[in-house]
Amino acid sequence: MNSLPKQLPPYIKNENGELWLTEDERENLKISYRIKDIIFSDQSPFQHVMILDSYDFGRMLVLDGVIQTTSIDGHIYNEMISHVPLQFHPSPKKVLIIGGGDCGAAREVAKYKEVEEIHMVEIDEMVVNVCKEHLTDVSGNLSDPRVKFMYTDGVAFIKEHANTYDVIIIDSSDPVGPAKELFSYEFYSNVYRALKDDGLMVCQSQSPIFHMDVLKQTHANINKLFPYSTIYTATVPTYPGGLWSFTIGSKIPLSLSESKLMPTDTKYVNADVLKQCFQLPQFMKQQLL
Amino acid sequence: MNSLPKQLPPYIKNENGELWLTEDERENLKISYRIKDIIFSDQSPFQHVMILDSYDFGRMLVLDGVIQTTSIDGHIYNEMISHVPLQFHPSPKKVLIIGGGDCGAAREVAKYKEVEEIHMVEIDEMVVNVCKEHLTDVSGNLSDPRVKFMYTDGVAFIKEHANTYDVIIIDSSDPVGPAKELFSYEFYSNVYRALKDDGLMVCQSQSPIFHMDVLKQTHANINKLFPYSTIYTATVPTYPGGLWSFTIGSKIPLSLSESKLMPTDTKYVNADVLKQCFQLPQFMKQQLL
Repeated sequence: MNSLPKQLPPYIKNENGELWLTEDERENLKISYRIKDIIFSDQSPFQHVMILDSYDFGRMLVLDGVIQTTSIDGHIYNEMISHVPLQFHPSPKKVLIIGGGDCGAAREVAKYKEVEEIHMVEIDEMVVNVCKEHLTDVSGNLSDPRVKFMYTDGVAFIKEHANTYDVIIIDSSDPVGPAKELFSYEFYSNVYRALKDDGLMVCQSQSPIFHMDVLKQTHANINKLFPYSTIYTATVPTYPGGLWSFTIGSKIPLSLSESKLMPTDTKYVNADVLKQCFQLPQFMKQQLL
Repeated sequence: MNSLPKQLPPYIKNENGELWLTEDERENLKISYRIKDIIFSDQSPFQHVMILDSYDFGRMLVLDGVIQTTSIDGHIYNEMISHVPLQFHPSPKKVLIIGGGDCGAAREVAKYKEVEEIHMVEIDEMVVNVCKEHLTDVSGNLSDPRVKFMYTDGVAFIKEHANTYDVIIIDSSDPVGPAKELFSYEFYSNVYRALKDDGLMVCQSQSPIFHMDVLKQTHANINKLFPYSTIYTATVPTYPGGLWSFTIGSKIPLSLSESKLMPTDTKYVNADVLKQCFQLPQFMKQQLL
């Protein structure tokens, strides 16, 4: 414990010699993770950034006290937000990722040889740098020359591009603070404009258990803009409620090609998961379809 | 807060006038739920039994401080442990439930008109009584005359029956304390014997994230005893890790009949979920199949 800073970051408490991170963004639910070590802790211009080493989930990226991704389950989210849209696109050459500072989505996209350019637009350079250095289980210490990092506001960036991308992945944090605009109708309409004529987008659309309102609104917005849309789910253990939703908007009909190769080194997604993730539980069908 | 007992039960703390239940059965992960009210709290001969009213999950059954089921997500677990095996059996007439004191599984089984007898073998009568009275969102205040309650030890009960049941549902708590024997090879071999020649069983087999060892051992035991076995999953928000597994052992080939009717009043399971729940993520396939 010699590496501990003299003053503990907010969100972390020392209880009888044990360090605990408590997530309390929900008013009536707190999840506490026992921490081995604080690897990195600093305030960026945008948020408080930590890399923690936890007992149950390995290393974690924590922004403003909220876990974003971990060594143990980060791949579930990152594989699902990347491979599903890429499997739908007939020939993804130019991919834009908005957010995704942990680099996990870019790492998954880079597994497709046909992809020529990956533009990563992340507002917070500190997040990318610490994930590349300290969270390599998730980031893979990404150094693929096809990835171009742009540290700027995704909302402003998207307005300046039209008919440019094959696939756009919106890998945002929760719709509070800086990420709020990434859930707006105006933003999605700019995403539509930035896509090529056969392009498609995906976004994380929150927990169907706790934020059905956000999922409903996101799906309604995307469904209004795009001729084709669909919702899929995955189970992400460190996200409250476990069940997580993603929404796709597409300019072309959504059909999975049997001939499209899935990278062989995935840990969660496979051809079976690709088929099952669109089969929604009854309460979601009733409220959404 | 006038209804509060003078002395708070263990597991519940009063923090600045707010009541919080903290689940800490895992050493390095604590989940805390804010509680509106303690509806029931008493020690049975087997365990400490509580019904709590929580802010995020409604009423909860809590045994020895561990949440077993809630108003908000209890149906997910209960529908999945009941409808999946019943959909596989060509003609389920006599069903045994071991455990399942919240009555939710019995409630789901009772939705099948072809079922003639439902034997509920639960060791703790207090659990059944308080769930029938105080947790009706889960129990449905079950009063179906086909359900026969037997308050006895499932391990002893199963030894005394041979060639008796079409479907056996093992709805146990975690494999610690009284439920430990319900995960043993000897117990499953007695379950095999208690099933008719075309019978099948299902058990909950814990979290693939945190207890892959339990799932592996359970699957190995069942796979050794039964000619046909399979694993399926569901997402249960109040179980640590979210993703939960179930294992089926069957004396007959497992095939879903298109003609078999699914009850129309389910909230989670439907024909789509029935097909997708057997499609396992890659890490489970690699370790189990």
